[in-house]
Amino acid sequence: MKIGILGTGMVGNAIGSKLVTHGYEVMMGSRSATNEKAAEFVKNAGKGASQGTFAEAAMYGEIVFNCTKGEVSMEVLKLAKEENLTGKILIDVANPLYFEKGAIPTLSVCNTDSLGETLQRNFPSVKVVKTLNTMNCNLMVNASLVPGDHDIFICGNDAAAKTKVETILRNDFGWEHILDLGDITNARATEMLLPIWIRLYGKFQSPNFNFHIAK
Amino acid sequence: MKIGILGTGMVGNAIGSKLVTHGYEVMMGSRSATNEKAAEFVKNAGKGASQGTFAEAAMYGEIVFNCTKGEVSMEVLKLAKEENLTGKILIDVANPLYFEKGAIPTLSVCNTDSLGETLQRNFPSVKVVKTLNTMNCNLMVNASLVPGDHDIFICGNDAAAKTKVETILRNDFGWEHILDLGDITNARATEMLLPIWIRLYGKFQSPNFNFHIAK
Repeated sequence: MKIGILGTGMVGNAIGSKLVTHGYEVMMGSRSATNEKAAEFVKNAGKGASQGTFAEAAMYGEIVFNCTKGEVSMEVLKLAKEENLTGKILIDVANPLYFEKGAIPTLSVCNTDSLGETLQRNFPSVKVVKTLNTMNCNLMVNASLVPGDHDIFICGNDAAAKTKVETILRNDFGWEHILDLGDITNARATEMLLPIWIRLYGKFQSPNFNFHIAK
Repeated sequence: MKIGILGTGMVGNAIGSKLVTHGYEVMMGSRSATNEKAAEFVKNAGKGASQGTFAEAAMYGEIVFNCTKGEVSMEVLKLAKEENLTGKILIDVANPLYFEKGAIPTLSVCNTDSLGETLQRNFPSVKVVKTLNTMNCNLMVNASLVPGDHDIFICGNDAAAKTKVETILRNDFGWEHILDLGDITNARATEMLLPIWIRLYGKFQSPNFNFHIAK
């Protein structure tokens, strides 16, 4: 299956590399078709990896991952163009973090809205599925990095799209416990886990932890 | 030890009843010194239980619990009067939930502030400790209601106050895993767990679950 990745940072690199390992063909998209970080990804990931603009990656992928920083996600999706994404699944792993010098990051949108909802509202022909946004990128693609039972949340308006995404989470990333919260409005609930995630990261001095709902 | 409880709802009742069982003397405070729900608490809890106004309960308690609804907490604390609480520990278990008909509750304050911080800022002579706010009231006072490992969060500016509260959590309510997040600004992080808590409650149709940080 062909996958488009928007964003050449650690998150896009972790997801893209893992998917290539599992036999997917992955195009990493960035502002420029010759982005150096994307070129390094292509070199390291090897056969099956390619690079292009945001629009080219969006056009290429049957499923597209939004791995950009939340603050630029809307802009990147506009560059990717809705016509290249119509009817496709957009897996939104981003968080609307607002970084201010010397302060713990806050959310630029929350409580009555979210980044996931913003993307769905602005690109109505795209099937936005919010998941993977409540953890570090190495854990995203390798659930066994944290021992014991722990959970991943998923939400989105299209049930069939969520089923497809769950298959990737399960088979390629090793997730056993997937909690479907319902439609995309639930994105605000998972994005609002970031404030405590950030504080726990500071406390533990390690990103290798995850939420588990004990019951 | 003498405990004051502000609020006669399910939360105040659960905490007060448990503490009386463990030998504490508990005064439940409300707007009126003859509140019917407080009277019922006194009748059911028996020896060691009493009732009074918010100000009387605040004066009575060596430690005081804020078990009011978040939307009235500031007003209740004003009625309780800072002079009755000066130097004392106020355990804030409330959440700033905003209820709108037909909608999932949102938070009236979050992200860059919280109810816990608001109380601490407005009553600087009181040692506000935020805890117990991320779960149902029956679980608050009986950690074993949910099987397996799961966690309770605590934060506040006064280390000695937190140590005292942790002793109650551990010895009286059965909490083994207590995560100290730091100062009271961390209250915003735990209050922001409410949106996902509410959704999980809807999904599970049971409040008998809790957060665990797996690592």
